[in-house]
Amino acid sequence: MINEQYKAMLNGKSQIRVLSEYAAKRGQEIGYENVFDYSLGNPSVSAPKAFTDEMIRLLREEDPMTLHGYSPSLGITSVREAVAASLSERFGLPYTAEDIFMTSGAAGAIAHAVRAVSKPGDEILTFAPYFPEYNPYITGAGAVLKVVPADTKYFQIDFEQFTAMLNEHVAAVLINTPNNPSGIVYSTETVKRLADILREKSEEYGHDIYMISDEPYREIVFEGVDAPCISKLYDNTLMCYSFSKSLSLPGERIGYVAVNPNCRDAAVIVNMCGQISRGTGHNCPPSMIQLAVSKVLDKTSDLSVYETNMNLIYKKLVELGFTVVKPGGTFYIFPKALEEDAAAFCNKALLYDLILVPSDTFGCPGFFRMAYCIDTEKVVRSLAALETFVKAEYR
Amino acid sequence: MINEQYKAMLNGKSQIRVLSEYAAKRGQEIGYENVFDYSLGNPSVSAPKAFTDEMIRLLREEDPMTLHGYSPSLGITSVREAVAASLSERFGLPYTAEDIFMTSGAAGAIAHAVRAVSKPGDEILTFAPYFPEYNPYITGAGAVLKVVPADTKYFQIDFEQFTAMLNEHVAAVLINTPNNPSGIVYSTETVKRLADILREKSEEYGHDIYMISDEPYREIVFEGVDAPCISKLYDNTLMCYSFSKSLSLPGERIGYVAVNPNCRDAAVIVNMCGQISRGTGHNCPPSMIQLAVSKVLDKTSDLSVYETNMNLIYKKLVELGFTVVKPGGTFYIFPKALEEDAAAFCNKALLYDLILVPSDTFGCPGFFRMAYCIDTEKVVRSLAALETFVKAEYR
Repeated sequence: MINEQYKAMLNGKSQIRVLSEYAAKRGQEIGYENVFDYSLGNPSVSAPKAFTDEMIRLLREEDPMTLHGYSPSLGITSVREAVAASLSERFGLPYTAEDIFMTSGAAGAIAHAVRAVSKPGDEILTFAPYFPEYNPYITGAGAVLKVVPADTKYFQIDFEQFTAMLNEHVAAVLINTPNNPSGIVYSTETVKRLADILREKSEEYGHDIYMISDEPYREIVFEGVDAPCISKLYDNTLMCYSFSKSLSLPGERIGYVAVNPNCRDAAVIVNMCGQISRGTGHNCPPSMIQLAVSKVLDKTSDLSVYETNMNLIYKKLVELGFTVVKPGGTFYIFPKALEEDAAAFCNKALLYDLILVPSDTFGCPGFFRMAYCIDTEKVVRSLAALETFVKAEYR
Repeated sequence: MINEQYKAMLNGKSQIRVLSEYAAKRGQEIGYENVFDYSLGNPSVSAPKAFTDEMIRLLREEDPMTLHGYSPSLGITSVREAVAASLSERFGLPYTAEDIFMTSGAAGAIAHAVRAVSKPGDEILTFAPYFPEYNPYITGAGAVLKVVPADTKYFQIDFEQFTAMLNEHVAAVLINTPNNPSGIVYSTETVKRLADILREKSEEYGHDIYMISDEPYREIVFEGVDAPCISKLYDNTLMCYSFSKSLSLPGERIGYVAVNPNCRDAAVIVNMCGQISRGTGHNCPPSMIQLAVSKVLDKTSDLSVYETNMNLIYKKLVELGFTVVKPGGTFYIFPKALEEDAAAFCNKALLYDLILVPSDTFGCPGFFRMAYCIDTEKVVRSLAALETFVKAEYR
């Protein structure tokens, strides 16, 4: 008999995907250049040439049997060494290869991290607004996701609600900064306060509470923004990284878990990740992509377009009277909708070919997300449409 | 607290890996060319040039954003179409893209297939000798693996023991033909009889029993061997394929589940696989590898060396008095050890720098596996060592 639990999931179609499909269909009618599609978080700038060059070099010069051979279950040793060296130099923590587990993107990283530091039934706390795929990652591990309501004023952390939800069943706190969907970066003050509370409560409950830090947007931080390294402020941190955004390689499924070398049980956690893979059929990320990425660890795509787009959109939103917190990074912005029902607001926007994502799915009703990973020229044209929409519907 | 279940798995080190590590270490002492390493099932022939050429073409000519962009969760549509067309032409079944789910190798394929057609607590039956990683794949899905003892005479199926183990909790039967570790291919007669029993019992129990067919060695079948297409003989078949062996790409993690178009619920099973991925963080195999493989679906590496090696080894084993069933495919052979304790036998072989894997881990004590995916020149030298070993220890 087919599994009814997975079958039931088929009814819960992702709203982001539905909107993205609508945008593609509308594009066929009026030309996709006329659809202001802010639905999907797909990078809009190319992978760096250095990555492409390294891939071609590997294919031409390396022995195919070595190049395409099985990766050890924790990742290729030279790749783990390179990642550790790059992190150590950058963040001043003594990472070694033994702290690094190579994964298929941040999704794979989080799925492993959650399984490593929780047992079925344990609670994982996250903060609204949050990436909705956290639900299947955590449910799939047998743990329970609990969502701390948003600090809708600054999109930092509402500590009062957070401390009220802490209890001895909390195995880990899952944070995402720079944040999808808010675009906000947690300040040093926020992270320090969070770390203090976790240390205090770990002592009180008699077990470590881990920090799972989802960091795919780490390289997209805007000028002058305070963006602390989470691992430096809390020892029991599992950094979950993806190259999807920094190198514009979302489809190539490459990332890692870097366990803070000062974390209790660091080495055993990494080795456990290798065991966890066996049960999910996940195994390693592709050997060739591991090798190529290890040569461009300190490079990024040209990410400057995202800040250019953010400034244009933020300025226009303020001008049109929106309540909006200025993003510190990512390629998202998260303004308050102009009516209580964000879905109704976004539906009306469709009439102006503006594809905006209502915030309910992010656990924070009344807002909408714009993923501004699109050409600046299109952003400019979209703002005229936004102005027409707002003036026609809300004046 | 770290998860004790996964921590406990750290003690159960794979014997194959231990032997392979020993071989590497011994190679540093005496030169790896002098270590007759039959431990690991790693292809020993290069990926076809057409694959490398297509990879380089993609990297040079395609738009990087499209090339490296997210794959839809079931796989890239053009790739699924190409796989379906290739299977339809070859096997005469009406596959369409809707029947294909792209995976990270056969491991990913089996992990999804098991989750799709079983619920926690259900039984999955497999046949000894079997690939030991079936244990974590099936335990990870919450199902229970039950192993039907081997037909040690022919390594087909012991139907008496099989029917005795069938019961209403059996959700699926997992078969692997051509087989790792025996090298045997199930005959048309075997598969037909198995299919008849499953149809009869599905009716009796009032629910479908699925066939999960693990087929990474499908393209390595020796001359004159009867190697039926499983899906043609049983409608409710989920074919789990990997390109690891046929294209010598084990590290690139690419394969698929092809659900028989005549399977009840074919379309819903494929869609469910997309949902299952969300919980494991597995997502899709890398976009670029999907695209490249789709252009070389009907090509293989030069696989002829495996048959050459098999014939040399089989002849010598028979000459030395081993009891051994002649393999029909793969790059494995599975002779009876010359003493009851296969581990003791393999330990003695180490003194002659012969790295053989004792069969206990495959659920079939008293035998040993040789993975003859090594150079023919080395096979020839190893047979002299084998002769010396046998004559010294067992005459």
